[in-house]
Amino acid sequence: MIRHLLSGADLDASTATLVLDTAAQMATVAGREVKKLPALRGRTVVNLFYEDSTRTRISFEAAAKRLSADVINFSAKGSSVAKGESLKDTALTLQAMGADAVVVRHPASGAPHRLANWVDGSVVNAGDGTHEHPTQALLDAYTMRSRLGRIAGLHVAVVGDVLHSRVARSNVLLLSTLGAKVTLVGPPTLIPMDIAQALAPGTDVCYDLDAVLPEADVVMMLRVQRERMSDSYFPSAREYARRYGLDGPRMRRLPEHAIVMHPGPMNRGMEITAEVADSPRSTIVEQVTNGVSVRMAVLYLLLGGNKL
Amino acid sequence: MIRHLLSGADLDASTATLVLDTAAQMATVAGREVKKLPALRGRTVVNLFYEDSTRTRISFEAAAKRLSADVINFSAKGSSVAKGESLKDTALTLQAMGADAVVVRHPASGAPHRLANWVDGSVVNAGDGTHEHPTQALLDAYTMRSRLGRIAGLHVAVVGDVLHSRVARSNVLLLSTLGAKVTLVGPPTLIPMDIAQALAPGTDVCYDLDAVLPEADVVMMLRVQRERMSDSYFPSAREYARRYGLDGPRMRRLPEHAIVMHPGPMNRGMEITAEVADSPRSTIVEQVTNGVSVRMAVLYLLLGGNKL
Amino acid sequence: MIRHLLSGADLDASTATLVLDTAAQMATVAGREVKKLPALRGRTVVNLFYEDSTRTRISFEAAAKRLSADVINFSAKGSSVAKGESLKDTALTLQAMGADAVVVRHPASGAPHRLANWVDGSVVNAGDGTHEHPTQALLDAYTMRSRLGRIAGLHVAVVGDVLHSRVARSNVLLLSTLGAKVTLVGPPTLIPMDIAQALAPGTDVCYDLDAVLPEADVVMMLRVQRERMSDSYFPSAREYARRYGLDGPRMRRLPEHAIVMHPGPMNRGMEITAEVADSPRSTIVEQVTNGVSVRMAVLYLLLGGNKL
Repeated sequence: MIRHLLSGADLDASTATLVLDTAAQMATVAGREVKKLPALRGRTVVNLFYEDSTRTRISFEAAAKRLSADVINFSAKGSSVAKGESLKDTALTLQAMGADAVVVRHPASGAPHRLANWVDGSVVNAGDGTHEHPTQALLDAYTMRSRLGRIAGLHVAVVGDVLHSRVARSNVLLLSTLGAKVTLVGPPTLIPMDIAQALAPGTDVCYDLDAVLPEADVVMMLRVQRERMSDSYFPSAREYARRYGLDGPRMRRLPEHAIVMHPGPMNRGMEITAEVADSPRSTIVEQVTNGVSVRMAVLYLLLGGNKL
Repeated sequence: MIRHLLSGADLDASTATLVLDTAAQMATVAGREVKKLPALRGRTVVNLFYEDSTRTRISFEAAAKRLSADVINFSAKGSSVAKGESLKDTALTLQAMGADAVVVRHPASGAPHRLANWVDGSVVNAGDGTHEHPTQALLDAYTMRSRLGRIAGLHVAVVGDVLHSRVARSNVLLLSTLGAKVTLVGPPTLIPMDIAQALAPGTDVCYDLDAVLPEADVVMMLRVQRERMSDSYFPSAREYARRYGLDGPRMRRLPEHAIVMHPGPMNRGMEITAEVADSPRSTIVEQVTNGVSVRMAVLYLLLGGNKL
Repeated sequence: MIRHLLSGADLDASTATLVLDTAAQMATVAGREVKKLPALRGRTVVNLFYEDSTRTRISFEAAAKRLSADVINFSAKGSSVAKGESLKDTALTLQAMGADAVVVRHPASGAPHRLANWVDGSVVNAGDGTHEHPTQALLDAYTMRSRLGRIAGLHVAVVGDVLHSRVARSNVLLLSTLGAKVTLVGPPTLIPMDIAQALAPGTDVCYDLDAVLPEADVVMMLRVQRERMSDSYFPSAREYARRYGLDGPRMRRLPEHAIVMHPGPMNRGMEITAEVADSPRSTIVEQVTNGVSVRMAVLYLLLGGNKL
């Protein structure tokens, strides 16, 4: 097993499959009367968040606690970081305090990789800038496998602001490792041709959502970053929704078995309508549940916990 | 037992009494060497706070931890909520992550009720706008019963800004269910006649604090919201204190056995003087202690924990 | 054993030595597979922080959790404290909720002492204004003893803004109790002659860092408070670094065995260069590790935990 999880590219097919299989075991815990496993008792997991992301932080916190780890939340706002402490000194401090794993969210792409050079413990990238968010890709893969029975051979359309999406990036890397075919869909300004090939050979690009839908097994809608809406990248919000939003009529162009995914939080009415979000095709709530199982698996495997 | 605790009106007399009796059992834990009970091991309690309220959050956190539950604090400030996620999507997310109970504080009256429609787990209202705060009413009832031996037949004066007080509202509902007689006392602008009858038949209104004191078994002082002091509702701060503040001379007009309550935090010198707050009649510190026991009881009963 | 830890002066030599010996036992836990001890199971430790100090808060949190205590974090920002609740009422509230220990950081010198008058539980001063930070002094003493084998007879140079440093103050008090010789080094405006004698007889003052280095066993660099740099107290930042910063050439003037300490977070390039901070003489990372062990020892001894 690898020591850190920094990128969707860290995982070869057999390691990724091990994570998904372990997550499936973890999911069975949810059905027990006592949902805790003693696997990581005495281990300390630090959530080091340089950006607010309550959903991701809570998911990791729930995962770690269900494995009986101690969790320490470190919001970098207002901390000594604000007083100018370097990422390196923060890393050395957390390690010196006995952190067995550091789960890090950072606005700068690459920060978790740098962190990993400085600590003996494990580093989990919980989102770095516009770069990667590998546990999101794992939970997405888990959800596809659980809904559709396999990943290899699936056709996955990833729709939206691919250029700035760490979710897209990690998904393309992991899905191509696992044998799925990915098509990136969105406005040309947000999907330069070279990004697709740079990420993974075989990744396609299409600017016409309607053309892709009839052939997709999975449509993964990305969150629109409203704060980028004023940029020249973007058409107007209304225009964006009209061309790349998923509504009922579009959803009905999908094959019968196809599923709709979204990493949350959704902008209902923007990239996805309420009708789609709440439909049986939508896996949005399952993705959240699977996120806890996948993060349990990642922490368990990275930390080489006591036997299950 | 009910599944949610949203309002003082959710509790009939026998359920309310069950909560108080269970809280009394919980209180015995405080005397043991190890103050933890395993009752909720493996359960997850989320404190979902859309408003700062450290006291209430800590009280629920201490209660849940003493029952061995895992606690996750979710301050909605700066979270994806700030990015526009709806209360419904937040609720579904927390449920999907495995929250067994959501303790919610929200500035909008009725928010916990809406939340309860969307989740399978239990919802506890920890204060919603100017509406309700039912665990406060339970801990107040517990305190009265513990000091005065009963609730039925007591005469309780609730003094202050009743119109905007969720504490007052929940207390009136619960106390009338338990057979106490409530008189609302304060400036006419803050206690419209119809509010009393709307809340519970038999509730009286009086604008003269001095007239009520000699007949009261309990005087419950509400916190003055200084931020409302500039409103036209209110006389000046000094005038308010003169007419509705509880000071030593007024306290001595109470019957010998009568007690003085306050939900905290106090404005010493405004609605209550230090002499009164620190007198043996004051139950203010006991109320805090009882709050933990009552919240343990509520969580235990709602979650149908393992046997005690 | 004492009930509170408020000042470096609270500890006589035998009590301080007991803390250091207990910390050494606690440190052995770090090597075990399960790093938790059940010693404080069922006890509640509240971190009451009126100032941000993530490092100190996390260190206490890790220490308490490793002893199986429940930890409740109370950041006073935005709490009822902000609504004007007094320190006394906050103290009484925490005690009423069952806090066995309150770890307090406060901008006002003396606040922890006042707190200690109001509660039955234990109070640990985690830094009050410019006054004291006794667990920092204990972890520094622990680090000296562990690196140099003894404390009595050591010559310790404390360098920087002594006037405003709680770290300096607590160290001078504790080190003189334990038989070390302390020399305060820094600009005359920041080390009035009378401060040295007022703190502990026998403490020396020197304005020339280079003169002190050849005789020092320990050089403890204080953090420069950049926010004070504009004050008239201080020479310019560059001038300060030139005269009182520790760089490679200066470090090489130390005796071979001498160590370099810093409480963190460092301003690399200001009071200490990267070369020095990362050299084998530097104990900066060890200090962080030792901080957790020392705080475990303090909480264990104050709370009279179950036997180890």
